[in-house]
Amino acid sequence: MARKIPSKIGLKVRKPRQRRRKIGKAPGTITYLGERSGGTSSIDLLVYNEDTYEKSTLERLEDLEKTPGGTTQLVNVVGLSDESVMSRLGQMAALNALTVEDIVNTEQRPKIDEYEGYIFGVFKMLYLNGDKKIVKEHVALVLQQDRVYVFQEIAEDVFDGVRQRLEAHTGRIRSRGADYLFFALLDALVDNYFLVLEVTEDKLDALEDEVYLKPNSETAFRIQQLRKEIISLRGWIAPVRDLITRLIESDSPMITKDTRLFLRDALDHANEIHETLQLQREMAFSLMDMYMSSVSNRMNEVMKVLTIMASIFIPLTFIAGIYGMNFEYMPELQWRYGYFAVWGVMGVIFIALIVYFRRKGWL
Amino acid sequence: MARKIPSKIGLKVRKPRQRRRKIGKAPGTITYLGERSGGTSSIDLLVYNEDTYEKSTLERLEDLEKTPGGTTQLVNVVGLSDESVMSRLGQMAALNALTVEDIVNTEQRPKIDEYEGYIFGVFKMLYLNGDKKIVKEHVALVLQQDRVYVFQEIAEDVFDGVRQRLEAHTGRIRSRGADYLFFALLDALVDNYFLVLEVTEDKLDALEDEVYLKPNSETAFRIQQLRKEIISLRGWIAPVRDLITRLIESDSPMITKDTRLFLRDALDHANEIHETLQLQREMAFSLMDMYMSSVSNRMNEVMKVLTIMASIFIPLTFIAGIYGMNFEYMPELQWRYGYFAVWGVMGVIFIALIVYFRRKGWL
Amino acid sequence: MARKIPSKIGLKVRKPRQRRRKIGKAPGTITYLGERSGGTSSIDLLVYNEDTYEKSTLERLEDLEKTPGGTTQLVNVVGLSDESVMSRLGQMAALNALTVEDIVNTEQRPKIDEYEGYIFGVFKMLYLNGDKKIVKEHVALVLQQDRVYVFQEIAEDVFDGVRQRLEAHTGRIRSRGADYLFFALLDALVDNYFLVLEVTEDKLDALEDEVYLKPNSETAFRIQQLRKEIISLRGWIAPVRDLITRLIESDSPMITKDTRLFLRDALDHANEIHETLQLQREMAFSLMDMYMSSVSNRMNEVMKVLTIMASIFIPLTFIAGIYGMNFEYMPELQWRYGYFAVWGVMGVIFIALIVYFRRKGWL
Amino acid sequence: MARKIPSKIGLKVRKPRQRRRKIGKAPGTITYLGERSGGTSSIDLLVYNEDTYEKSTLERLEDLEKTPGGTTQLVNVVGLSDESVMSRLGQMAALNALTVEDIVNTEQRPKIDEYEGYIFGVFKMLYLNGDKKIVKEHVALVLQQDRVYVFQEIAEDVFDGVRQRLEAHTGRIRSRGADYLFFALLDALVDNYFLVLEVTEDKLDALEDEVYLKPNSETAFRIQQLRKEIISLRGWIAPVRDLITRLIESDSPMITKDTRLFLRDALDHANEIHETLQLQREMAFSLMDMYMSSVSNRMNEVMKVLTIMASIFIPLTFIAGIYGMNFEYMPELQWRYGYFAVWGVMGVIFIALIVYFRRKGWL
Amino acid sequence: MARKIPSKIGLKVRKPRQRRRKIGKAPGTITYLGERSGGTSSIDLLVYNEDTYEKSTLERLEDLEKTPGGTTQLVNVVGLSDESVMSRLGQMAALNALTVEDIVNTEQRPKIDEYEGYIFGVFKMLYLNGDKKIVKEHVALVLQQDRVYVFQEIAEDVFDGVRQRLEAHTGRIRSRGADYLFFALLDALVDNYFLVLEVTEDKLDALEDEVYLKPNSETAFRIQQLRKEIISLRGWIAPVRDLITRLIESDSPMITKDTRLFLRDALDHANEIHETLQLQREMAFSLMDMYMSSVSNRMNEVMKVLTIMASIFIPLTFIAGIYGMNFEYMPELQWRYGYFAVWGVMGVIFIALIVYFRRKGWL
Repeated sequence: MARKIPSKIGLKVRKPRQRRRKIGKAPGTITYLGERSGGTSSIDLLVYNEDTYEKSTLERLEDLEKTPGGTTQLVNVVGLSDESVMSRLGQMAALNALTVEDIVNTEQRPKIDEYEGYIFGVFKMLYLNGDKKIVKEHVALVLQQDRVYVFQEIAEDVFDGVRQRLEAHTGRIRSRGADYLFFALLDALVDNYFLVLEVTEDKLDALEDEVYLKPNSETAFRIQQLRKEIISLRGWIAPVRDLITRLIESDSPMITKDTRLFLRDALDHANEIHETLQLQREMAFSLMDMYMSSVSNRMNEVMKVLTIMASIFIPLTFIAGIYGMNFEYMPELQWRYGYFAVWGVMGVIFIALIVYFRRKGWL
Repeated sequence: MARKIPSKIGLKVRKPRQRRRKIGKAPGTITYLGERSGGTSSIDLLVYNEDTYEKSTLERLEDLEKTPGGTTQLVNVVGLSDESVMSRLGQMAALNALTVEDIVNTEQRPKIDEYEGYIFGVFKMLYLNGDKKIVKEHVALVLQQDRVYVFQEIAEDVFDGVRQRLEAHTGRIRSRGADYLFFALLDALVDNYFLVLEVTEDKLDALEDEVYLKPNSETAFRIQQLRKEIISLRGWIAPVRDLITRLIESDSPMITKDTRLFLRDALDHANEIHETLQLQREMAFSLMDMYMSSVSNRMNEVMKVLTIMASIFIPLTFIAGIYGMNFEYMPELQWRYGYFAVWGVMGVIFIALIVYFRRKGWL
Repeated sequence: MARKIPSKIGLKVRKPRQRRRKIGKAPGTITYLGERSGGTSSIDLLVYNEDTYEKSTLERLEDLEKTPGGTTQLVNVVGLSDESVMSRLGQMAALNALTVEDIVNTEQRPKIDEYEGYIFGVFKMLYLNGDKKIVKEHVALVLQQDRVYVFQEIAEDVFDGVRQRLEAHTGRIRSRGADYLFFALLDALVDNYFLVLEVTEDKLDALEDEVYLKPNSETAFRIQQLRKEIISLRGWIAPVRDLITRLIESDSPMITKDTRLFLRDALDHANEIHETLQLQREMAFSLMDMYMSSVSNRMNEVMKVLTIMASIFIPLTFIAGIYGMNFEYMPELQWRYGYFAVWGVMGVIFIALIVYFRRKGWL
Repeated sequence: MARKIPSKIGLKVRKPRQRRRKIGKAPGTITYLGERSGGTSSIDLLVYNEDTYEKSTLERLEDLEKTPGGTTQLVNVVGLSDESVMSRLGQMAALNALTVEDIVNTEQRPKIDEYEGYIFGVFKMLYLNGDKKIVKEHVALVLQQDRVYVFQEIAEDVFDGVRQRLEAHTGRIRSRGADYLFFALLDALVDNYFLVLEVTEDKLDALEDEVYLKPNSETAFRIQQLRKEIISLRGWIAPVRDLITRLIESDSPMITKDTRLFLRDALDHANEIHETLQLQREMAFSLMDMYMSSVSNRMNEVMKVLTIMASIFIPLTFIAGIYGMNFEYMPELQWRYGYFAVWGVMGVIFIALIVYFRRKGWL
Repeated sequence: MARKIPSKIGLKVRKPRQRRRKIGKAPGTITYLGERSGGTSSIDLLVYNEDTYEKSTLERLEDLEKTPGGTTQLVNVVGLSDESVMSRLGQMAALNALTVEDIVNTEQRPKIDEYEGYIFGVFKMLYLNGDKKIVKEHVALVLQQDRVYVFQEIAEDVFDGVRQRLEAHTGRIRSRGADYLFFALLDALVDNYFLVLEVTEDKLDALEDEVYLKPNSETAFRIQQLRKEIISLRGWIAPVRDLITRLIESDSPMITKDTRLFLRDALDHANEIHETLQLQREMAFSLMDMYMSSVSNRMNEVMKVLTIMASIFIPLTFIAGIYGMNFEYMPELQWRYGYFAVWGVMGVIFIALIVYFRRKGWL
């Protein structure tokens, strides 16, 4: 009987397939690894300070250099597949070739590197799409003295809250420098992890109910899938904790003492996420145990029904068989009430067995 | 057949649902996350030193500043949901916006932060209510030079012992400063964890007896629930150990050498609690093993009954079947004592099988 | 069917019940937590040096101060339940209130604390009583310049060997100072742990044989009990290793270089005990695995018997059933040797099935 | 019934058999441990700098010394079995006897050692052969001021990409020194690990599908084999991470600051590989769990069929047996529609049982 | 049915029984703990330098002092049970009483201690005897400026290779000092561990085949035994790694820089052994998993046979039972071909069930 694998849940464990394109190439070679090749990059520019706020779309890369002094700039690059544009952008922004390589390497694991003149970070942006599915996107941030670069593959992101605060002049975001902007973006990334964890939490709850109420052979598969999903999430989220710690402890002059205080707050959130993931992993693990015990219990139930039915009717059938024998001389057969006596004996046996199984707690 | 999930045991694993309200907001934004919004804050004030003791309820926040010198003050804030009051209180107490944010964030995990002029701690207060159920409350403590703030959501708490010692002038609590008061409150928190662990210990014992005496399909579920409860407790309790260590090792001038000695004692208790939790976790884990072996044993028992019944009566029924055949020429049927001979043969087979099963130890 | 829990093995996992009496009290409050309240304390005094050895029972606490100079004293306090005596003793011995609190706290976990003028240690004394049962007693040691205090609940202890060496002037114990005496007592404590481990080792061996030879439904329970016992032992014994290390590394002038060398030897023993406990724990853990496999094997055996009996006799009964039918026209019934032919067919089937099961290795 | 062990998958767990040849010999004794003894060594020489590139095969060992100054040399030694050649080569290259011993010791685990004048590394080269099988080869690298030695057993290797970049003058490999060449070779080694991990990833996926769709008794064996394979891979690959870290942190003047930057990049890859291996190991582990649950589910299914068939037909057979009895007085037998009434009763029982099993969800 | 425990495999887990003899004694008391008491000690002396080599058996202990200057001496003491001889030897060699205690304590776990004037090490010598069984012997090494003491219980040992190299003047062993000799002995010890690991590797392979091809109820027991054996080996072997590290890092002037280089090589081997042991332990662990899955598979097979036999013949028997009923009016019985029609129906049911089980893959 054909049996189909249930549609896999949301995420896939990272497959290093795309990596293959990079093997044998020199390090620093800019090789786009994503699945959205062929597109172009669009570059948005936000220029602001306490007093001004200006949003524009960059036509030519060269315009980047014309931003006025005394402002902070947010350069938002969407679309990483055009290797030549990325390379030129890297040169204009004075980024190391290794940095640009990591920016376009959508398989790059989260990292923070300090280079001369800038701090560079790669993260996994996780959010829920319209169908409440978890979406994972590669995002790279670069912090320079007055400027933050955001590199992402598609326009949809988790930074709208930050942009709104910039535009609406909420809080003191516009009066603080680029390092605070960098922190605000990072904080937005981390905050969205909470929403993702809610989804896995819900799945865990649903699976727990399924294990308890109607376990079936696909339940084990679903638990396994969820386990893989949680492990993947951990792979993307867990490094962030160390990275923020490194930022806090870094002696880079670009990060002010105030921002370090805020980063400590973000670290707190990262710690909480880390703990929640640990908890979820442990839960998913013990869910399998519970499922196994549930399967055993079900089998016990099946076996009890079989045992009770067989144990009651096999002896009774034996008695009927006795009096179905064709011996010439069987005195009981001639008895007037032999037939009814046999029914009586059977009734007694039946009741005795019922009582026995009751006592054992099987009935 | 409808099967209901047994009412979940006491506690729930932390759900980050409320978090959602904070996502996208600037850090330092004061957002109450608890489930008791709409209430007001009431502020009690205890002013004492070696000689005086005065208890009052604060009508206006401004009165806080009128406390006499040379005294230690305990400011007890009950009700955290009014964000504007909390914000004003934070300004009057010279607390950082991030601190106030953590005070009203009832989902905040335990933490100790040192700021200029004060030490700030968030803890989970655990105690047993009237029904012996475990109650978890968010509590925040602030230690300043002469003053300790206690922030809590509801009036019920574990600090009555401390208040009584203050009022009754028991021991030397009134002659020591605010740091000792801070320690005493912390110590009361930790001491109550022992009571909570007793409850989980009792549940473990009860489950162990259940596994041994009458395991059923809900036992696994109950073990799983207890496991989750213990894991949750660990999440709330475990950080305290590190936090106290950090207090002891802190070089804050607000904590005297004497108080550090007392904190070492509290650390000792925290260590013991930590060990007990580890033990309980291990026990809950091995309980599942034991349950599985118990289920297997029960199944073994069921199978033995089936095997014995079937193995005895199926061969006997076969013999009866033989002599129920209608062949014209079956010599045994004409024998005078054929019928009784068959009974004899059956008896021998019956006894042989009984002996066989006895030897195997199945009967 | 009523089923009883087998009498629990020896030890119980620590229950923090008595703790409750301390909750809400000020730290440093002297609260006896043991189960032997109502008794009195008796104090024995050994005064010795290279040349003299004097043993006496202290009538009045004040006599403690009259011990001659140039001697080492061993003060042995038996019975800790009289809180007022303990408190006075603490004052006379210049012990911190926290120390006295720990001395009478029979639930105190093992610890070593250095105070000014003395080193204080709490340990769990483990030994075998007359019935070869493991006994656990609380013992506290205080090392001062020329004096060692031993606090214990009952007179029976593991220090007789040390006392004999003192009395008999064996080795150089009388020519070394109080620190060596402290070490000797500690060493006696640790040495007795080996005897206790022998007992658990024997239990492990006995259980392994039981699992192999005659596993029953109580075996799992017994394994679980032993696991708990080993975990408890670990909780009492394991800290000793760290405590001795701390003593060796301590810069207290009271511990001479020579004694540190001896302590290194005791550390060696503590390490060995620690490893043995790890081993035993691992063994107890894998014993449960083995038990499970044993249960499965037994079930396999049961199922094979059922399968063989049913598979042989059900088809044969079917054949007998065929010729028990009452159709008017059944040619075989008229055959002269029909009956015997049926026996022949049945015999062939019987033998074929036996051969089949033999081939499968089930018979 | 004979049952064969399925052909083992790809790799074998390291067997220290060859080791035996070394036991009892003095350290520094050059003993070839590989399986390709009897061959000869061929030595290829690449001499290059920014401007020149010359490739030659070394006829005589002595020619090594005639390489022109101002160039970087790559000495590629293929075939390690001739112990006397290796020994002479070691002397000419000024290598310590212990180094040469490790070079020819094909069982040597990965290591990096710094000696005076050179850095020495042993690695496991992993790549896929024509049949997509994983091949493991021993490779040793020596970095001297201007020269890199590569020692390998067979000509096939993973360094062709590096050689092509040298020949084609791609990137800046020819303008950088020997340390960059050393890094490039190391990077090529690490990059190939990704390809190997793809293979194990594929095997994991295939096994997961097998567990889900058609688990059989060989599945467990295959999971076990894959687990062993992953463990072996980890043994060969895992040390590389530490070794690269040591290179980065080494204060050897032979490694320039620039190369350290590149090594950091390689470390990044090594970290990713390490994580992937951890993930795969965890997956292989949980696959066994899933297989067990799958086996239990299958057994449940088998038992349900048995229970349903037996529970339905055993009672019906009993009823038929009743009316097969030969009592003289059985009133039902004379009833006109007795036979059809029995069919009716049987039908009712049949339907009732079907409904019962449906309700239970077994049908 | 009596069932015997299979003869235990090779080694036994360390039993601290002998320890009992030491309890209560003063530390430094020389107490032989081995099982070979009553014997005498024989002392062999090797005196050598670059030019000379002399082997003799010591008649009187005092002759030890007459060894010529400018030589290195290997003092080989066989037989440790004569406590008075050992004590005198200890005094002559200027060994601390604690050292001599450890030398005769055959239960002493591996250790390295540095004393003034000598380095002292205890190890477990493991080798294969004639029957390929693993033999474990206690061996103690003492390194002094010009002399190495080897203490062992019996003459058979793993040092013959070293002695041969000394006698044959192979390599540079005779031109290096006592520290190199110490290293050479240590290296011989470690090298023999490889042979022992081969034996456990073979046992693992054999058990894996047994699990796969013919698992039986003793297989679990054998896996358990092997697990215990591997754990014991780890207990004896694992400390060596740390001990060698300590030797390398020691600042003792007795160990030259050259010897440290060689020790690094030995450390390498110790690391490899450690890894192999970890691997073997993991393998033994997963073997139990595999055994359990194998047992479940076997049970599945048994159940399938039962289910198929019962499911086919129980319905057929029911049909036969129907027509065995004795109702007066059963129209089918009078039909001419009724009997054959019943055979036909049975055949159809039979084939349908066979097809059904085929489809399910059970046949």
